Amino acid sequence: MRQKTTQESALNRRAFLTGAASLVGITAAQALLQPLRAQTQAVPEDPTRVPGSPPSPYGQRATFEQAARLAGTSSSLTPLQTLHGIVTPSALHFERHHNGVPLIDSARHRLLIHGLVERPMIFTMDDLTRFPTVSRIAFIECSGNSAGEWRAPRGQTVQQTHGLTSTSEWTGVALVTVLCEVGVKPKATWMLAEGSDAAAMTRSIPLAPVLEEALLCYAQNGEALRPEQGYPLRLLLPGWEGNACIKWLRRLKLGTAPFMTREETSHYTDLMPDGTARQFTFVMEAKSVITAPSGGQQIRPGFVEIRGLAWSGQGRVTQVEVSTDGGRAWQPARLQEPVLPKCHTRFRFPWRWEGQETVLQSRCTDETGYVQPSRQALIAIRGVNSVYHYNAIQSWKVSRDGSVSNVHV
Amino acid sequence: MRQKTTQESALNRRAFLTGAASLVGITAAQALLQPLRAQTQAVPEDPTRVPGSPPSPYGQRATFEQAARLAGTSSSLTPLQTLHGIVTPSALHFERHHNGVPLIDSARHRLLIHGLVERPMIFTMDDLTRFPTVSRIAFIECSGNSAGEWRAPRGQTVQQTHGLTSTSEWTGVALVTVLCEVGVKPKATWMLAEGSDAAAMTRSIPLAPVLEEALLCYAQNGEALRPEQGYPLRLLLPGWEGNACIKWLRRLKLGTAPFMTREETSHYTDLMPDGTARQFTFVMEAKSVITAPSGGQQIRPGFVEIRGLAWSGQGRVTQVEVSTDGGRAWQPARLQEPVLPKCHTRFRFPWRWEGQETVLQSRCTDETGYVQPSRQALIAIRGVNSVYHYNAIQSWKVSRDGSVSNVHV
Repeated sequence: MRQKTTQESALNRRAFLTGAASLVGITAAQALLQPLRAQTQAVPEDPTRVPGSPPSPYGQRATFEQAARLAGTSSSLTPLQTLHGIVTPSALHFERHHNGVPLIDSARHRLLIHGLVERPMIFTMDDLTRFPTVSRIAFIECSGNSAGEWRAPRGQTVQQTHGLTSTSEWTGVALVTVLCEVGVKPKATWMLAEGSDAAAMTRSIPLAPVLEEALLCYAQNGEALRPEQGYPLRLLLPGWEGNACIKWLRRLKLGTAPFMTREETSHYTDLMPDGTARQFTFVMEAKSVITAPSGGQQIRPGFVEIRGLAWSGQGRVTQVEVSTDGGRAWQPARLQEPVLPKCHTRFRFPWRWEGQETVLQSRCTDETGYVQPSRQALIAIRGVNSVYHYNAIQSWKVSRDGSVSNVHV
Repeated sequence: MRQKTTQESALNRRAFLTGAASLVGITAAQALLQPLRAQTQAVPEDPTRVPGSPPSPYGQRATFEQAARLAGTSSSLTPLQTLHGIVTPSALHFERHHNGVPLIDSARHRLLIHGLVERPMIFTMDDLTRFPTVSRIAFIECSGNSAGEWRAPRGQTVQQTHGLTSTSEWTGVALVTVLCEVGVKPKATWMLAEGSDAAAMTRSIPLAPVLEEALLCYAQNGEALRPEQGYPLRLLLPGWEGNACIKWLRRLKLGTAPFMTREETSHYTDLMPDGTARQFTFVMEAKSVITAPSGGQQIRPGFVEIRGLAWSGQGRVTQVEVSTDGGRAWQPARLQEPVLPKCHTRFRFPWRWEGQETVLQSRCTDETGYVQPSRQALIAIRGVNSVYHYNAIQSWKVSRDGSVSNVHV
């Protein structure tokens, strides 16, 4: 990592110095001209003259920081345009509920495991936290992320187009550890997972592909799981669509076939051009998006660092390429270490904007060799009647006035 | 990571199954016997019968979760005994202030760089965020962490003995990028860093050893830096003592020698047995601690996963060994991937407690080959008159009744 940092710093310097002249000018001008924000009464003119606040048991963010999820009736969107690095603050992790966030006391919560098992058992949270633990940093993406983009460029900001994905460090017990405890019968090949919410959200999960990585999570970014993310217990299936990672998990039933809940018939299928529907399309394929500059933002001529996120439900991101000319030329972006499997990866690309109208795009490749498709390529196979699993290259148009907007090219 | 996960799961299974019999008994008994917590009126008996709460702009933790920093007058301690994984929630990151947390409006904040530079400049936060960015996950440890342990076992819990260390994902601009902008004169070898707090906290930093990794940070765990961590700007010197990572950073002055502020004379020196004092001892050497079971906790016979954290200011942790018999035998613990340089590393060790009195210890080795010293070895060189840089092996005594306490052996 040390060597990387040296190389990266050298790249930063070279890239930046091309834009340095204009920034020097802006810096000097801004120090004189930038209008002061309306001064809150409590903000001291000189903070070194006023003793500060004492330490506190549980900190809050600065009152000047207002980044927020965009909340609808059953979901809310992560403000990707304001985020840094790869960790999503738990308070800003996207939400998708099927009947609201239940109020659950962890001391009274139970997990029942039954069906094709040797020893049906009920676990308390205390039982589950005594098991050996596993942590991993992983993204969760709603399969409906970018659903508005199938037919027309509907989202005005990257929060609206891509805000249903977030990354956390998750901790819990491996599903396989708990299944060993109850003893799975050889015939069992599917598992019903059911939540304690008012939708009793329920999905059928094939066992074989998830046994290696699935976790029963009770912690997120170091502390207990947040209520919106399934407190006190959720199923984590790294790389799989968020709705299958059942929140407020209360029951696992082992069986020989999918249980055909309403979520796998009326919801969460992909309507194809020939009128058939793909079912049980759990894996979130490789995807990337430029988060800055992005829709609704404004840029100034000179040096602009293009920043974004890439991820793949199949494993590690191996490359992100950026085009600053609407897809004619592509150049590799720098990937921020650590690049982790099934996890957001931050990419950065130094650019100098000369004031011309243009289109910015990113496309990623994952370790399976899969390349994020163009919109045309995706639609050629999938048509435009789907809701879920839209992972096409996103295009942001930069106008001559520096404003950035969502376009389909 | 996939292969690692398989190996780890296999290890989990083997380790766990040795303790499975006792856990089964406990599980069954607890389902019947565990007293229910006093039921809050608002908690529904069956959460599936009551529509839940709608999505929200900025989430809060569950009301049942009460993990808190232990706050004194000028510092607060991270509750390491309640944390999972390696990311410390920003709300629980330890604090150490020299005159409180200043209230600063980022729009009015400025960074002055002057002294031995070609172009003295004042930067706004808007200027700084336009530079190329770098993110890294790193620990910050107060050099006074474990200071109470020099003479006697004073801390009752791991929060009290080791709570002045935390890990976050930090994002900002490389110091070297900004220094290139102002042009450092060849004679400059030291840098004064000054905060905007009411202590005007000020340290002298030698340039050569920090140029490769130092960051001017404005983000922590994805969102803006928290006020207690230096909002809107702090210096991050990965692996160096926290007080040198100046918070609320407002000034950098380049010079030819240390500036000999009060913090490098009256504070932050290490008194040696011969009456001399070590000065400018910035690096935090390798250290580890078992966070569970730890002081104040209670264990039950049967399977116990020993969990802890290890870190080194010199780079990566390469090994953590655990002793369950007071230091006679040592066995390697499992390290949770990713193991990152200058970052907390989570370790885990499966153990079966048979009810005997014993002492639990951990010791880590870093990539330089440095091994965390025993208390005896540390004191033989350092004496007992120091305040800072105590990194000896921690001992937790397990009594026959399962209670755990801090001892010096």
